[in-house]
Amino acid sequence: MINVAILGFGVVGSGVAEVLQSNAKVIEKTLSTQLAVKRILDLRDFPDSPFGHLITHDFNDILNDPTITVVAEMMGGSHPAYDFTKACLQAGKSVVTSNKEVVARFGAELLELAAQNGARYLFEASVGGGIPIIRPMVNDLASNKILSVSGILNGTTNYILTQMLEHGAAYADALAEAQQKGYAERNPAADVEGLDAARKIVILAALAFGPLLSPDSIHCEGITQITAEDAAFAADNGYAVKLIGYTELLGGKVLAMVTPRLVPISNPLAGVCDVFNGILVDANMLGECMFYGKGAGKLPTASAVVADMMDIATHLGTAVRAPKFSVAADDDYADFGAYRCRTMLAFEDKKEIYEKAERVFGELPMLSHGRAVLVSAEMSEAELDERISQMGVTPLSRIRLL
Amino acid sequence: MINVAILGFGVVGSGVAEVLQSNAKVIEKTLSTQLAVKRILDLRDFPDSPFGHLITHDFNDILNDPTITVVAEMMGGSHPAYDFTKACLQAGKSVVTSNKEVVARFGAELLELAAQNGARYLFEASVGGGIPIIRPMVNDLASNKILSVSGILNGTTNYILTQMLEHGAAYADALAEAQQKGYAERNPAADVEGLDAARKIVILAALAFGPLLSPDSIHCEGITQITAEDAAFAADNGYAVKLIGYTELLGGKVLAMVTPRLVPISNPLAGVCDVFNGILVDANMLGECMFYGKGAGKLPTASAVVADMMDIATHLGTAVRAPKFSVAADDDYADFGAYRCRTMLAFEDKKEIYEKAERVFGELPMLSHGRAVLVSAEMSEAELDERISQMGVTPLSRIRLL
Repeated sequence: MINVAILGFGVVGSGVAEVLQSNAKVIEKTLSTQLAVKRILDLRDFPDSPFGHLITHDFNDILNDPTITVVAEMMGGSHPAYDFTKACLQAGKSVVTSNKEVVARFGAELLELAAQNGARYLFEASVGGGIPIIRPMVNDLASNKILSVSGILNGTTNYILTQMLEHGAAYADALAEAQQKGYAERNPAADVEGLDAARKIVILAALAFGPLLSPDSIHCEGITQITAEDAAFAADNGYAVKLIGYTELLGGKVLAMVTPRLVPISNPLAGVCDVFNGILVDANMLGECMFYGKGAGKLPTASAVVADMMDIATHLGTAVRAPKFSVAADDDYADFGAYRCRTMLAFEDKKEIYEKAERVFGELPMLSHGRAVLVSAEMSEAELDERISQMGVTPLSRIRLL
Repeated sequence: MINVAILGFGVVGSGVAEVLQSNAKVIEKTLSTQLAVKRILDLRDFPDSPFGHLITHDFNDILNDPTITVVAEMMGGSHPAYDFTKACLQAGKSVVTSNKEVVARFGAELLELAAQNGARYLFEASVGGGIPIIRPMVNDLASNKILSVSGILNGTTNYILTQMLEHGAAYADALAEAQQKGYAERNPAADVEGLDAARKIVILAALAFGPLLSPDSIHCEGITQITAEDAAFAADNGYAVKLIGYTELLGGKVLAMVTPRLVPISNPLAGVCDVFNGILVDANMLGECMFYGKGAGKLPTASAVVADMMDIATHLGTAVRAPKFSVAADDDYADFGAYRCRTMLAFEDKKEIYEKAERVFGELPMLSHGRAVLVSAEMSEAELDERISQMGVTPLSRIRLL
């Protein structure tokens, strides 16, 4: 029997207990032993829960229990989650987590600490919820150079954008509906402004390329500026609108960004709708492959956490492959201005706009839902900025193509 | 340095050598050692290949070389591939393969043999080419009970069906085009009659449920009977037509089948087009997740073979999780007649057909491209057979819905 502890008995934490209980037979058959929850840390009591008797309010009850070998950090937020993780790893306990905030900020240090202490730090559930992506990148794609990763990494925003695209909903209405259905928080900022996706793309970028960028230091745009007209243009012209986390090597440095994108319907990400996530990896030998599924939710996410626990249980005391992240130096960040793509620009429907746009871009905008819209040739961000400044008009919308 | 050998220097075998060479730096960085090709077995000589000097015509040069620890069996066919695999495992050498024929027929025995000899038998490339699916099912989905697996497992037939659906091509023309483009063999039987997909679905079924069924003993239909009218009906009514390998537990036994299916466009498999493969796994905690990518091709497939080699190199001498297959007994096969689904039936456009169909199915067929077509309620195969016999008319087409 292997004893595990859970830090935080919220949605995912209680889901972990539930998966361990519901699928105990499957788990025992695979491991030839049981995973038993010995302690659960929470500030609250849960007198009505079947796990209520396992609750402790004192982290030391877990840290100092030598029979606990695996700890699931399910607290969320940076502190004390980071501090507790560090203490566990230093004590030689392995830690599994779904906490993308901690992985994105402290992953390099925590992976190093795990390696030094003969423990492991696994975080499959931190990106894509229950979708296998971290372990496949570490193991299955190991024979490839990763060229780029493009992901729909946030279900809340994907639900909102799907509503806007398929039903012509306005952003505010789609957000309100997402909140009503429980897909969006009352304060949706971390989702709709892209921070959640930014944390996930820096984790994927570190897996692909090594340096762990700060999610606060990458180019990050949310979906709050997307209009019904943008969605209508996309629908009319063979695109979906998606919030895409993207990473590639650019000039030998790491580019990571979160922006809304027009995704051609021939791209498999275009078909990833509602609250689903999809992560498309382009690798030098394999080409493109995609991982698709539920990027959030209690049981899907918990099932990935438990798979990490089982990985640790299978390999207790043996050498395994672990990713290595480095703390990104200033010099690891690629120049965003050098990133090249095509971009949709929308302007007011005025005669002089058409003239200016044709002069500067060599292309006449089309009239689309009351706006003058053009899709630029591929050029760098810096060059596009320069051309827009030549036009002397601020676009109503500026959305990159994927 | 870890020495590997390649059995068979055909398309995938030479791809393995190419991946090992092209991505040598990535591989060495991950493993902290090199994977070096020491010997290649082939009947032919390759004087112009950079690997030509490694060719041997004698399997014993590999079997008896104690410095070779990993052997890639890339020969295809059952014999001597199975015999050589067995000899290598008995000698304690690990074997990796893309040979679905051998895995589907002898996988249970070979996995057992590997376990007995402290070796490993890995076959990520046998299903879905380069797409990660085997290792994710063994590791990432380990905390779940698998409910079902539905896969587009054969790129050749998916290309043909995509042409029929999108361009209204007739089957014979689409096949001829696939042959011209090199997507289909001159003798396409194994692909178009479903045997290739049958081998792959029995492997996935064994991963999900344990017993390894014989690919010759499962219900298997190919795509040779699919008509342009079937494709047109699908396109008109919100379906794609796909050749689907499917497996589930039915009455506690394993059902596996390969049949053309009408796939609703809301199902992510419907968007898997051309030569791409997609595998949708439904798991009790995770729900549905899909793995998508290139299911064939020299370098994609070879990259999965090399990832398996790297897995072995990482875990030399340590205990790892391996799937266990059992040889299926007669009693492990589910009763195909009990399988329940909806089915499209197409008949000649004759007045009495409409009357009979309405009487027997309680539903009036619709006229579609010159045929009387109905989609049945969900019922068992046995019940559908019974109703068709009540009608006393053989349908022109009978295609299950997914």
